[in-house]
Amino acid sequence: MEGSGSISGFCPLYHRAIEIIGRRWTGAIVRALLAGDTRFCQIRSTVPGLSDRLLSERLKELEAEHIVERRVYADAAARIEYHLTDMGEALAAVVQSVSVWAEEWLAPKVPVSR
Amino acid sequence: MEGSGSISGFCPLYHRAIEIIGRRWTGAIVRALLAGDTRFCQIRSTVPGLSDRLLSERLKELEAEHIVERRVYADAAARIEYHLTDMGEALAAVVQSVSVWAEEWLAPKVPVSR
Repeated sequence: MEGSGSISGFCPLYHRAIEIIGRRWTGAIVRALLAGDTRFCQIRSTVPGLSDRLLSERLKELEAEHIVERRVYADAAARIEYHLTDMGEALAAVVQSVSVWAEEWLAPKVPVSR
Repeated sequence: MEGSGSISGFCPLYHRAIEIIGRRWTGAIVRALLAGDTRFCQIRSTVPGLSDRLLSERLKELEAEHIVERRVYADAAARIEYHLTDMGEALAAVVQSVSVWAEEWLAPKVPVSR
């Protein structure tokens, strides 16, 4: 795919990917994990407005998609951590391209002062 | 944002962008427009499973977001075309990064023959 002229009109893999990443809250959860959050309560407090129920649901979906791995540590606190798999880490490029577009096109334009 | 280590945990602009692009069918419609479709019926036939009602709804949303421009030509057929704005064309980078990830991670792996 070089330049928009050679993009095919429809691609089932792209369509599937956009469905996974675009699911409500999923993009924000992946970003929180990329930024270094590993605990349930960390992710929840990083993403404003995200409920326990939805975070739990989304993490299960991301596990089923092999994007997130749930690790249970058998120490005193029975610690649970969520980590991105290689497949999940590879989403960094997508998160970055969305962020670049968002900063360019959605940021409020500051008027140039003289 | 250089490398995943420096991604902030939450960014409202990114969150808003992912909400716009991730809405069901929107990613596929933007891709069809990037590939050169301009007519309603062209887009509908490029994207399998997309209904008239949902295409019409999504195009109106994309117009409201300034991603798509609706052009009416006052010729005999009262032709209507949909074009990406500069903001919409800039989504090519996002579509490309999602496609690269999808091809790498969602494509069925062909077993290596000996």
